[in-house]
Amino acid sequence: MLDAVIAIRERLRTHSPLVHCMTNQVVKNFTANVLLALGAAPAMVEDAEEAAQFAGAAQGLLINLGTLDRPQVAAMRAAIAAANTAGTPWVLDPVAVGVLSLRTRFAAQVLTQKPALIRGNASEILALAGAEGGGRGVESGKSSEVALNAARQLARATGAVVLVSGRVDYIVAQDTETAVANGHPLLTRVTGVGCAMGAVCAAALAVADHPVEAAVATAVLFGVAGELAAQKAPHPGSFAVQFLDTLDALDAPTIAQCARIA
Amino acid sequence: MLDAVIAIRERLRTHSPLVHCMTNQVVKNFTANVLLALGAAPAMVEDAEEAAQFAGAAQGLLINLGTLDRPQVAAMRAAIAAANTAGTPWVLDPVAVGVLSLRTRFAAQVLTQKPALIRGNASEILALAGAEGGGRGVESGKSSEVALNAARQLARATGAVVLVSGRVDYIVAQDTETAVANGHPLLTRVTGVGCAMGAVCAAALAVADHPVEAAVATAVLFGVAGELAAQKAPHPGSFAVQFLDTLDALDAPTIAQCARIA
Amino acid sequence: MLDAVIAIRERLRTHSPLVHCMTNQVVKNFTANVLLALGAAPAMVEDAEEAAQFAGAAQGLLINLGTLDRPQVAAMRAAIAAANTAGTPWVLDPVAVGVLSLRTRFAAQVLTQKPALIRGNASEILALAGAEGGGRGVESGKSSEVALNAARQLARATGAVVLVSGRVDYIVAQDTETAVANGHPLLTRVTGVGCAMGAVCAAALAVADHPVEAAVATAVLFGVAGELAAQKAPHPGSFAVQFLDTLDALDAPTIAQCARIA
Repeated sequence: MLDAVIAIRERLRTHSPLVHCMTNQVVKNFTANVLLALGAAPAMVEDAEEAAQFAGAAQGLLINLGTLDRPQVAAMRAAIAAANTAGTPWVLDPVAVGVLSLRTRFAAQVLTQKPALIRGNASEILALAGAEGGGRGVESGKSSEVALNAARQLARATGAVVLVSGRVDYIVAQDTETAVANGHPLLTRVTGVGCAMGAVCAAALAVADHPVEAAVATAVLFGVAGELAAQKAPHPGSFAVQFLDTLDALDAPTIAQCARIA
Repeated sequence: MLDAVIAIRERLRTHSPLVHCMTNQVVKNFTANVLLALGAAPAMVEDAEEAAQFAGAAQGLLINLGTLDRPQVAAMRAAIAAANTAGTPWVLDPVAVGVLSLRTRFAAQVLTQKPALIRGNASEILALAGAEGGGRGVESGKSSEVALNAARQLARATGAVVLVSGRVDYIVAQDTETAVANGHPLLTRVTGVGCAMGAVCAAALAVADHPVEAAVATAVLFGVAGELAAQKAPHPGSFAVQFLDTLDALDAPTIAQCARIA
Repeated sequence: MLDAVIAIRERLRTHSPLVHCMTNQVVKNFTANVLLALGAAPAMVEDAEEAAQFAGAAQGLLINLGTLDRPQVAAMRAAIAAANTAGTPWVLDPVAVGVLSLRTRFAAQVLTQKPALIRGNASEILALAGAEGGGRGVESGKSSEVALNAARQLARATGAVVLVSGRVDYIVAQDTETAVANGHPLLTRVTGVGCAMGAVCAAALAVADHPVEAAVATAVLFGVAGELAAQKAPHPGSFAVQFLDTLDALDAPTIAQCARIA
């Protein structure tokens, strides 16, 4: 698995997959810069007609519900349909599902449209699996372990790989479970880190041999870069800058030395 | 008052109030990062149905008119109504009111919906009070003093605390007036600092004993952090990064030493 | 020409032109900070009614098609009409034209509305001139030279100055051609640098004696600041911060020493 993670990191740089990010208004800039730091090529297209055209041409698609509104619902539907027709893998990031109604209804519908990967925190994965809601919205008060059963249920029901983010990240597929114990609390003090993980999952899917490897690679890259950045920058403003620099510099020996995959 | 400012700074970290920011497209990311640096929990929700749900659940609501459009008018109306029903305090930031028509009409309407706090520059406060317009839009060529009478009139008419931003920040309530003389010119060279002040006002309202203290605390935190950041970073790119780091690190002794409240 | 570039750089600081940026959702914050770093005054207004009011009052207008949607088409039409009535120069940045349909149709229409300046990469300029499409969207795999004939054709057909961005930037007008050989690969690793060039073109048009000088000044300022920032910051996160600091600090002797204009 470590070899797969390192291979994905290299291929992001050499293949530069084009990722169509339909994501929330708060994190578009940071998401694009995270993808660029890793060597991928971000693009954001919002109009329904154009989103459908672009989802077919891109190598990965992210559907993040953070600031969902009615025009975006229509554009995302069109993009998902085009991605599925073209065979483009797509990622669902169900931000605040279970707390707010429009996105909860929409997430339930698109769950049947074969996402390759679902990334969320414990509250979101619990809500998406129909277990319960009760988060505060964008961040989760729960540890990721409590959503393991919900993740298994989601993986079985949808065929998707489920990445539950938290202090430990769990990657749950129908036949395998992987834990990644990298990370740092400062990653929760910069807006959009979790949302950017969804985008990197979409980029990694484009170059990975298996969706599980794409999810594990994303968790390792974010966790290791967070740990290294925090050593140089103990406050959130400079940490965010250092995080991008570290993603850019992250090489195979560093990943091999720091990754904690179980 | 200094004790109240210090108590609010601590409570932002310990209570982590959830702030619903309905704000403009330019500053969403920076606003969220400012709130996170201070320990608060930001969330942006845009759909009218969801905004109403969220404004009731959040502990503070920001209404910033910077990139107002028709869908946002509807969503903001719904959010303000829900906030008032739930007793959630809300802040009005009347960006460029007096210069542009849609926001000027909308601001006049919501002024009757009991904002707890109004934050603007001199031109905006003058325009909101019906005195005059004539700003260039987002920034104010006027010194804050010239809007003191307009601020008094607004405070009387609406019951809100009015924070007039400028070289000196004035906090005007029906029965008190406070001046905060902290700040640095670099604060005007980074987009969204004023808009983020409105968001921090909403967070501070959630943990303050009185709205006046929330406004004074916001003015002190921004002014002191701006002064300290400028000592380390004399250019605007690194200043913005240093400003976030400084907000994170800002502690009681530093505030006690640097605050200039009159 | 070097004297003109230096004069424009100084006037951005002393005149602080108000630039109305109708641009994409990914880059609004960075665009505003680039303009502020150079001394200009950015403003973003989105509603069609307000955009028309503001385009008449501003000293420059940017029309960037990066995340075009139907409401923005209407607002941009209104803003362009108001700008032309008021004599405000406007810049077209045809992001991903030739790849996506809504923006390709819209760009063809507004090309008849007398843009003062068009800024794009080689793929976009080729598509806009009707030569061909075939880019991947936001970035260009082509070197800028291949679009020179298309740029000449566009300049002739529209009367606009055409700035083709690439390793070498070409500025093509009906009677002159200029090449600027400044720049650094890290400029392509930060999202929004090209889009911010369009905004600075609009600011420079407001203070330049001739549109060609505005385009050359923009290419020189970005290229030189990129080179200097890369010396201090070899990774993209800190490079973006350093780029803003360098734009702020850029003075006449540095420009005179570093500019490579042919």
